[in-house]
Amino acid sequence: MRMRYKPWAEDYLKKEPNIVDIDGSHAGQITEWFGNDRPIYIEVGSGMGQFITTLAAKNPDINFISMEREKSVMIKVLDKVVEQGLTNIKLICNDAIELNDYFKDGEVSRVYLNFSDPWPKKRHTKRRLTYKTYLALYKQILKNDGELHFKTDNRGLFAYSLESMSQFGMYFTKINLNLHEEDVEDNIETEYEKKFSDKGSRIYRMEAKFH
Amino acid sequence: MRMRYKPWAEDYLKKEPNIVDIDGSHAGQITEWFGNDRPIYIEVGSGMGQFITTLAAKNPDINFISMEREKSVMIKVLDKVVEQGLTNIKLICNDAIELNDYFKDGEVSRVYLNFSDPWPKKRHTKRRLTYKTYLALYKQILKNDGELHFKTDNRGLFAYSLESMSQFGMYFTKINLNLHEEDVEDNIETEYEKKFSDKGSRIYRMEAKFH
Repeated sequence: MRMRYKPWAEDYLKKEPNIVDIDGSHAGQITEWFGNDRPIYIEVGSGMGQFITTLAAKNPDINFISMEREKSVMIKVLDKVVEQGLTNIKLICNDAIELNDYFKDGEVSRVYLNFSDPWPKKRHTKRRLTYKTYLALYKQILKNDGELHFKTDNRGLFAYSLESMSQFGMYFTKINLNLHEEDVEDNIETEYEKKFSDKGSRIYRMEAKFH
Repeated sequence: MRMRYKPWAEDYLKKEPNIVDIDGSHAGQITEWFGNDRPIYIEVGSGMGQFITTLAAKNPDINFISMEREKSVMIKVLDKVVEQGLTNIKLICNDAIELNDYFKDGEVSRVYLNFSDPWPKKRHTKRRLTYKTYLALYKQILKNDGELHFKTDNRGLFAYSLESMSQFGMYFTKINLNLHEEDVEDNIETEYEKKFSDKGSRIYRMEAKFH
């Protein structure tokens, strides 16, 4: 998610220390931060937060984490959380590569990736959020039966991810190759998804687990 | 491949006993039938044979098997083999479920499935050629590093196959989600593929192996 740099974003986020972790102060203590042991679902790269705030509002018995490294984007997520008075969502401002600093092994029940940067150039393969380095992080922090849910409109990224994930030893429990043409309950659209599916782009979706 | 029933097809096929096995007489002796130990590639459900005869003509150092249960269809394959004078292809007239009667464990290097019947109704799941019963047969007859190559225009069958195969412990080395839009070398079209891609249908393709 590209957005104009906002120099005031850091100060804005710091005003809500009970919602936003901007400096890693809750690393390794996320369940304690929530103060209960409900299941934890993370969205890695939350963009403007439409998806995860809608999901959080619908599922008060789940604890949600929005992880996003761009402060100028995260302020949009924070605004939605505050406006809706959501108490079951926390925001972590950091890069996905730091996931295992924040979560204990097996602490997480589900990871969502929505419209992640496709990094289409071959030399940028390692930056894709379904590259094996990231899959290893998800495996580490997920429970044994934990799930990865992934949506994208990028055909190349989806094909790459099917290859990368299956080679890593993951399997797919649900695949949609044209989500908006299929009979799917409860799809929550992201801002990006709505814009591109309205233009006729196909949306691809998968649910996956580790063998 | 549906085709008018031809009562004379069996007699027609029997006239070429060195090319066609109609009664299982070469079961368990396929390498011996070829008389050399070149790699064996099988197409399960060859339809009219455009794909496998083109492939056989281009690859004289590979032994090809066309397996097709419909005699009325197989005569079209036989005609192509005879017309082109191909000596590296044999035809087996039987159902895929009998594969392990014909091939020894690990005897086969590659299995092709092209535009297999999608069997879209849930109660017919077990008939799909990527259902676990069939995957187990492919695994049994394939070498350790053997490959399954699969093409279809049926979105539902492709999605199902990604699920079924990954759950069985297979992984994907190459996936195309819109084959004719992608930069692929040496794609050999089947009759069916040409007809449907000309109409604008997407063609899906994968290459897969067993973990």
